[in-house]
Amino acid sequence: MDLYFSPLACSMATRIALYEIGETANFVEVDPKTKKLLADGTDFRAINPLGLVPVLRTDDGAILTENAAILQHVAETFPDSQLGAKPGLERSQLQQWLCFIGTELHKGLFTALLDRKSPAEVKAYTLDKYLSRLEHLNGKLEGREFLLDHFSVADAYLATVLNWSQATPMIDFSKYPAIKAYLERMRARPSVARAMGEEAKLFQAEMARHKAA
Amino acid sequence: MDLYFSPLACSMATRIALYEIGETANFVEVDPKTKKLLADGTDFRAINPLGLVPVLRTDDGAILTENAAILQHVAETFPDSQLGAKPGLERSQLQQWLCFIGTELHKGLFTALLDRKSPAEVKAYTLDKYLSRLEHLNGKLEGREFLLDHFSVADAYLATVLNWSQATPMIDFSKYPAIKAYLERMRARPSVARAMGEEAKLFQAEMARHKAA
Repeated sequence: MDLYFSPLACSMATRIALYEIGETANFVEVDPKTKKLLADGTDFRAINPLGLVPVLRTDDGAILTENAAILQHVAETFPDSQLGAKPGLERSQLQQWLCFIGTELHKGLFTALLDRKSPAEVKAYTLDKYLSRLEHLNGKLEGREFLLDHFSVADAYLATVLNWSQATPMIDFSKYPAIKAYLERMRARPSVARAMGEEAKLFQAEMARHKAA
Repeated sequence: MDLYFSPLACSMATRIALYEIGETANFVEVDPKTKKLLADGTDFRAINPLGLVPVLRTDDGAILTENAAILQHVAETFPDSQLGAKPGLERSQLQQWLCFIGTELHKGLFTALLDRKSPAEVKAYTLDKYLSRLEHLNGKLEGREFLLDHFSVADAYLATVLNWSQATPMIDFSKYPAIKAYLERMRARPSVARAMGEEAKLFQAEMARHKAA
């Protein structure tokens, strides 16, 4: 399978999931600014007109977009990995977490804060409206190792999103001790550490390219 | 089952799905401003600390939050209704649509535009960043009756979100003819027409209450 990704973007969740399983993919880097494939300069919008990563091309040639769909596809493709959830209530809980992370944290809280072009009013509005989600998450993580009773694709996604706090000094995780401890645990997990280490290097190269351009 | 909802909010998608199936629920109205149950004035935050609808209490007493999770739960509880999707690629496509509607349209485009307290800068930023999603959706809807090959919970969600355009004059669907035609088709569908008709009345009563308060 081919995974179209940008360094440290939400596409990293799928890389973490694959490393957790002991699998890999053909990782195709997309420059998030130019929307071009790094390898050959072709236009990523020909693959996803929205220009958003991740995109997964399955071994059957199907194109999947949207993080929650791709993560669940990977979990179901490798059922022995138990990165997904059992049918029934556990699966609902997995979908609940994927939706919460995608809408309230990723899109609600982080997207505007990470955007260098968002005005100060937008950042202030965003913090006012969405910071309470961290309080909620902190309560849910107290006394728990993972979001479900085992590591799942929801943890891969949450670790990826919380890792963005490196670039959002207005969010202070010392106020949310259970989140802070969770992120430290996740960063020490081999699959996560490997993915973050590799993508951090690619991210630095991306920054250097943009600076030189 | 109990469905906690606010009139015309995204919780309406579950009502549409239930009517489509020929089912109903104990619908419990939540005032979105006070976060109190309309019937007895008790605090909705005791049920969902985030104060967000929908919440579904299943017949087994489990509490589910997050629209995508609740809609998939309803579809799976009534498999004969075919409101969900077949395992495999079709299910991935359903999850893709639920995620796109939830993150790019609902949270990305509409939430800030519908918020009476969001400053003009926030509305302008939101339109600049997310209006392109309608162009994308319009292309996807061209020549299609539904998002998948049949009516699904993703259509129930999309009809609910697009219906908010009544309150967002800055979005002009005449520029997106396939979306406009889709919304008209959906509004004429009996399950959707019934849900919208019932909730529009409750919404008017909510507005009158807030005005009187």
